[in-house]
Amino acid sequence: MQRRKFLTGAAVGAAAASTTIAAPAIAQSMPEIKWRLASSFPKSLDTIYGAGEVLAKRVAEATDGKFQIRVFAGGEIVPGLQVLDAVQNGTVECGHTVSYYYVGKDATFGFDASMPFGANTRQQNSWLYHGGGMALMREFFAKYNMLNFPCGNTGTQMGGWFRKEIKTVEDLKGLKFRIGGYAGKVLTKLGVVPQQIAGGDLYPALEKGTIDAAEWVGPYDDEKLGFNKVAPYYYYPGWWEGGPCVSALVNKNEWEKLPKHYKAVFEAAAAEANLDMSAKYDVLNPPALKRLIANGTQLRPFSKDIMLACYKAAQETYAEECAANPAFKKVFDHWSAYLAEQRSWFSVAEAGFDNFMLYGIPKK
Amino acid sequence: MQRRKFLTGAAVGAAAASTTIAAPAIAQSMPEIKWRLASSFPKSLDTIYGAGEVLAKRVAEATDGKFQIRVFAGGEIVPGLQVLDAVQNGTVECGHTVSYYYVGKDATFGFDASMPFGANTRQQNSWLYHGGGMALMREFFAKYNMLNFPCGNTGTQMGGWFRKEIKTVEDLKGLKFRIGGYAGKVLTKLGVVPQQIAGGDLYPALEKGTIDAAEWVGPYDDEKLGFNKVAPYYYYPGWWEGGPCVSALVNKNEWEKLPKHYKAVFEAAAAEANLDMSAKYDVLNPPALKRLIANGTQLRPFSKDIMLACYKAAQETYAEECAANPAFKKVFDHWSAYLAEQRSWFSVAEAGFDNFMLYGIPKK
Repeated sequence: MQRRKFLTGAAVGAAAASTTIAAPAIAQSMPEIKWRLASSFPKSLDTIYGAGEVLAKRVAEATDGKFQIRVFAGGEIVPGLQVLDAVQNGTVECGHTVSYYYVGKDATFGFDASMPFGANTRQQNSWLYHGGGMALMREFFAKYNMLNFPCGNTGTQMGGWFRKEIKTVEDLKGLKFRIGGYAGKVLTKLGVVPQQIAGGDLYPALEKGTIDAAEWVGPYDDEKLGFNKVAPYYYYPGWWEGGPCVSALVNKNEWEKLPKHYKAVFEAAAAEANLDMSAKYDVLNPPALKRLIANGTQLRPFSKDIMLACYKAAQETYAEECAANPAFKKVFDHWSAYLAEQRSWFSVAEAGFDNFMLYGIPKK
Repeated sequence: MQRRKFLTGAAVGAAAASTTIAAPAIAQSMPEIKWRLASSFPKSLDTIYGAGEVLAKRVAEATDGKFQIRVFAGGEIVPGLQVLDAVQNGTVECGHTVSYYYVGKDATFGFDASMPFGANTRQQNSWLYHGGGMALMREFFAKYNMLNFPCGNTGTQMGGWFRKEIKTVEDLKGLKFRIGGYAGKVLTKLGVVPQQIAGGDLYPALEKGTIDAAEWVGPYDDEKLGFNKVAPYYYYPGWWEGGPCVSALVNKNEWEKLPKHYKAVFEAAAAEANLDMSAKYDVLNPPALKRLIANGTQLRPFSKDIMLACYKAAQETYAEECAANPAFKKVFDHWSAYLAEQRSWFSVAEAGFDNFMLYGIPKK
C-alpha cells in the first residue's frame, strides 16, 4: 500500500523562509495521496462496479490529480464479500460494497443498504442524508473502525429468475434460491432454502439445476449474466431491495489523515456517484428489459398472496431480531417509524403523479 | 463584481526561482476566485434557496476556501425571475433558478426543469445525466451564453390551494390560478386564467380573492407561506411538476476561465446539492402535511376527468408548440420518447414495490 508523500509543515516552512511566496500554506493544501479501493464487483458490471471509478475519477479531477484512488475489482485484492474486513483492518483505505453482504456479522448492516419491505431509492437517500439514518449508521460503523458514504443505488431490483412458475406460497417450499442479504432469513420461514453463491458461479448453478432460482440486480446486469438463457420466468418486485444503497466504506484512521478539503471532495464525489449510478441504471434498464422480453423472457409479478406471506414473515423476523440484538432494534425502530411517515407522504403527490402516468394516460 | 485575484505563472516563476519548492505549479493550482450567485428564491425558503448555499459551501470547502461563491437571495441583485438574464449578461457569474420561469422567452427552457405530464424526479435526473437530455439542453443554453447544471429537485409538487372545491372540468372555467411555468398555457385551453405573481405577493392575493387558487411547491414551503389559512382545499398531484429540476446556470465566459479542477469541484457539488435538496424536501414534507391536515386542510385529488382533460390539453399545446418552434420540437421528440420507455420500466419493479408498500401492506 502506498502512503502519502508530502512535505511536512516544518520542512516546507524552513525551505520557504527565503522567498516571498506563502509557500507553506499552498504546498500543504494539495498533498499527494494515493488510496486503494477494493470493489465487491466485477469490472464487467460497468454500472455497479463503475460507481467506484466515477468516485475515483472525480476525486482525482477535483484535486488536480493529487488525491488518487485506484479501484480494484472484486477478487483482485480481496474477494468481493470480504471488502468490509479489508477496510476494517487497513488492507485497503476504502471499499465499494453493499453493506447487507455483512448481515452475517450483524443484521444491523442491512439498514445501510436495504432491508425487506423497506425504503425505495428516494426514501433510502432521505433517511440517510437528512432523516437521521446517517448518524445511526455512522455510530454503528464506528465499531468497525470505518465510515460509510452512500455511493450508488440500483433502484428497485427485480425478484429474480425462476426455472418454474411460482404461483402460490406453497411453491416456495424447498426452493433453492440464491438471494443476497437479509431476505434469505425471511424466506426460510416460508420453506425456501437460501443459497449464498458468488456472482460468477451463478449462471452454471442455475443452468445445471443446482439451484432453482437466482436474483441479482435488474434487466441490464441480469442480461449480461445470461440468466434469461437458463430460467424463463422473471419475477418482480424484489421486495427485499426497494432502493438498495451501495456504499463507499472508508477506514477511520485513513479518513482522519485526510486534509479537510480532501474530505469535502470525497464526500461530494460519493454523493455524485450515488446519484449517477441510479441515473445510469434508469437509462440502461428499460431497453434491456425490452430485449429480454423480445427474446422470450416471461415477466411475472409475485402474487398478492406471496407478497403478503413474505411481508408477514419479514415482520416476524424483525421482531425476533429486535428481541435478540439491541443495536438492530435501535436502528429498526427509527427506520420503521421514518418509513411509515414517508409512505403517508408518497401516497399523495408522488403516487398520484406516477400512477396516473403509468396507468391513467390514454394508450396511443 | 469581484474578479479573480491570483498570481500569474510568470510572476510566481520569477519569485520562486530562488527556492527549492516547486511553487509555480502549486500556486497556480489553487487560485483565489470569487463568484456571485443570484438565487431566484427568498432566504426564508431554506430548502430551495438553501441548495445554492449547499453548492457554495461545498465548493469553498473542497477548494480549501479558494473558490468562494457568495449567494444572494431573489431581489438582492436582480429580481427572482430575472436570474437568467443576469447570468447571460454577466451581472453575476452564476444563478440558481428554475428554467421554466423563462418559457416566455422560449418554451424549450421548460425541459430543463419540468413539463406537464413529464418526468418524475428519478426520470428527470436520468434523462439529464445519462439519457441524452443534458447534451440537448446544453446546446440550447449555449445560445444564451451559459451552461446548466442540475442543482436541486423538489419531488412531485402539490396541485395547489383552492378557495373552492374543483369537482369537474367545468369548475376550472374562469378560475384565476397562480401557476408557474408552461402549465398556464395548458390550462388556458380549459378556461383557466393563469396569473403570474411573485412568491411574496401570493398570500395577500389569495386572501383577498384577487385570485382563486395558487400553487407553490409542497407542504413544507406552502405551510411557511401560510396558504392554508386562506384556502381550505389542497389538491394533488401537481401534474405539471412531476420532478422539477432546479438549475445552477453559469455564464460561459466565466466557466471557461475556471481551472479544470475547479470545474470538477463545481460539477460534483452541484450534483450533490441536487440530491441533497430532494432528500431534504422528502424529510420535511411528511410532517408538514400532517400538521396542515391536523389544522383543517382538506386534501383532494384532482378527479380522473380533470386529469384526463388536462392531459389532452397538454398534448394539444405540445403539438402546437412543436409546429411553431423547431428548437422545442427537437427536445420534445427526444424527451417524450425517453419518458415512454421509462414508464414501461417503472411500471414493473418500481411501481410493483411502491404500490405494495403504499396500498398493499396490512394496516396496523
